[in-house]
Amino acid sequence: MVRRISLAHGEGGELTHQLIQHLFIQSFGHQDQTQFDSAILQGPFENIAVTTDSFVVNPIFFPGGDIGKLAVTGTINDLAVSGAIPEVLTAGFIIEEGFPLPDLKKVVHSMAAEAEHAGVKVVAGDTKVVEKGSVDGLFINTTGIGRITGEHQLKPETIREGDAVMISGTIGDHGVSIMSARQELGLLNEVQSDCASLNHMIHKLMQEVKGIRIMRDPTRGGLATTLVELCEEFHCTVEVDELAIPIRDAVHGACDILGFDPLYLANEGKLVLIVDRASQQQALNLLNKHPLGTEAKVIGQVTAQGNTAGKLHVRTPIGTTRRLHRLSGMLLPRIC
Amino acid sequence: MVRRISLAHGEGGELTHQLIQHLFIQSFGHQDQTQFDSAILQGPFENIAVTTDSFVVNPIFFPGGDIGKLAVTGTINDLAVSGAIPEVLTAGFIIEEGFPLPDLKKVVHSMAAEAEHAGVKVVAGDTKVVEKGSVDGLFINTTGIGRITGEHQLKPETIREGDAVMISGTIGDHGVSIMSARQELGLLNEVQSDCASLNHMIHKLMQEVKGIRIMRDPTRGGLATTLVELCEEFHCTVEVDELAIPIRDAVHGACDILGFDPLYLANEGKLVLIVDRASQQQALNLLNKHPLGTEAKVIGQVTAQGNTAGKLHVRTPIGTTRRLHRLSGMLLPRIC
Repeated sequence: MVRRISLAHGEGGELTHQLIQHLFIQSFGHQDQTQFDSAILQGPFENIAVTTDSFVVNPIFFPGGDIGKLAVTGTINDLAVSGAIPEVLTAGFIIEEGFPLPDLKKVVHSMAAEAEHAGVKVVAGDTKVVEKGSVDGLFINTTGIGRITGEHQLKPETIREGDAVMISGTIGDHGVSIMSARQELGLLNEVQSDCASLNHMIHKLMQEVKGIRIMRDPTRGGLATTLVELCEEFHCTVEVDELAIPIRDAVHGACDILGFDPLYLANEGKLVLIVDRASQQQALNLLNKHPLGTEAKVIGQVTAQGNTAGKLHVRTPIGTTRRLHRLSGMLLPRIC
Repeated sequence: MVRRISLAHGEGGELTHQLIQHLFIQSFGHQDQTQFDSAILQGPFENIAVTTDSFVVNPIFFPGGDIGKLAVTGTINDLAVSGAIPEVLTAGFIIEEGFPLPDLKKVVHSMAAEAEHAGVKVVAGDTKVVEKGSVDGLFINTTGIGRITGEHQLKPETIREGDAVMISGTIGDHGVSIMSARQELGLLNEVQSDCASLNHMIHKLMQEVKGIRIMRDPTRGGLATTLVELCEEFHCTVEVDELAIPIRDAVHGACDILGFDPLYLANEGKLVLIVDRASQQQALNLLNKHPLGTEAKVIGQVTAQGNTAGKLHVRTPIGTTRRLHRLSGMLLPRIC
């Protein structure tokens, strides 16, 4: 029996799943809120979506971004993939005594710039400072609120056999950029984090493409864990083609050296979506025209629907098929 | 020139004020949001209030509460004193590797119980786990969303000379309970934290009493800092009578031993309000009838209004008057 929290409880994989199911959902009782990355509110706040995320990435500056940009994009993306238009954010800072003020300024300016770029407002904040050694530098919580409009209704219950599974670009970039920033790869690697706000691209997609069943951003736990969760939640089987998944050579290289599987590496600016086969080409064209979707690809399809146990299969380059599970154990702590 | 963040930047006093004014408000640009403890949203979210708070209290269990209860009451109170009806919360957990699971359960159950008691729902959550030594145990961010209804309009611009300044009960209890839990007082002290959700009491007050100008909860920085902020913001002078302020003997005793001023100690279940003199008695009666307001008192009055530099004065027991400023420097880190 688990008596202590381990790093794996925060990796977005199996143990995180168990903690959420057995402690948080049981205590706070909102089983119905698990369909999307944001909670879709009811009653007085109908058509409002809310999501929260704490960012503990180490180091706080990395190729392609920093903890501030990440804190904005991460929360914006959770709203956007839930079909909401992100409108406002709150920002809570926990800062270690002695933290350099110029670094804090850099991070805050980076947040402000990304928020402006994405068209959201940071409306409330909080600052706590703790003694040296009680926190590693700087942690940021962002909570986001978005609007669900008529055109933004996702219908995961309409997922059916033959639907296309798509990814908006290369996977694993964020994971490798963090490893690289930690100098675990020496000077070998120049991969930038993909850290980006997807809301404008998603908004366009949802306005123009009618057959989008569900969207997710494959962050902690990577593409594989995200797809396993979708399969389990919506009782479908998905088969992806390993060779169709866009992966940079540098990411492949880093994974080969370190023994990681890019399918489980975190992404911070990628969109996975399941689309009606009839809309697949339209969605792909639209994504490819957007700067954040130039390398979007169809990577697989829904091969069965309605079976109680959802499964993710991957077709390997040698033609065999294997089943993938959610991330289990520890991969990369403090990736976001 | 300050180059590094100090503990005093998080104490809710002068340095916190400067950090908010010179970095956060300049970067995120919402000067207009400083009137209340919550941001009152505009546009698509009209009449919605939002607030965020991170809790880093040390120790996490203390007489009268724990970090979970505090995280719920703190955010609920920030909404309630802004005139909003708290409806939903999000909860972000940052947990140290090795943290005991039974303690996490205790904290989560305490949050759930307090949320239920206060009538709010925890709708979204996030869990991050960091390596041993990267965070001291457990930090929690809660962000709250509330509704502003017609009857909940506060009108600080109507503050005028002669208005009554009231407090809903004894001050300094939370501060002393935390010092006591840190064993800085040995076994001498049995003061419980006043940590409580004020929303039901405030709702009743706002429904029945018409002349409420403004409300605040005097947390970090204590009653004095809260009143200084009100005076500065609304350009009024307040004079409070030191002898009228309810303070427990045990709190007085602890302050005498440790050299603290109870006026600067944190409270987590107290309400300060400025009320039209004509409504003073009605407000007092209503508060005194509520379990959280039995010791409510009128502690002073607005002695001038409209002057540009707001000031707080206190009449001392020997009949002299001195000016109080906001908390400056470090008092008690990690009080909430």
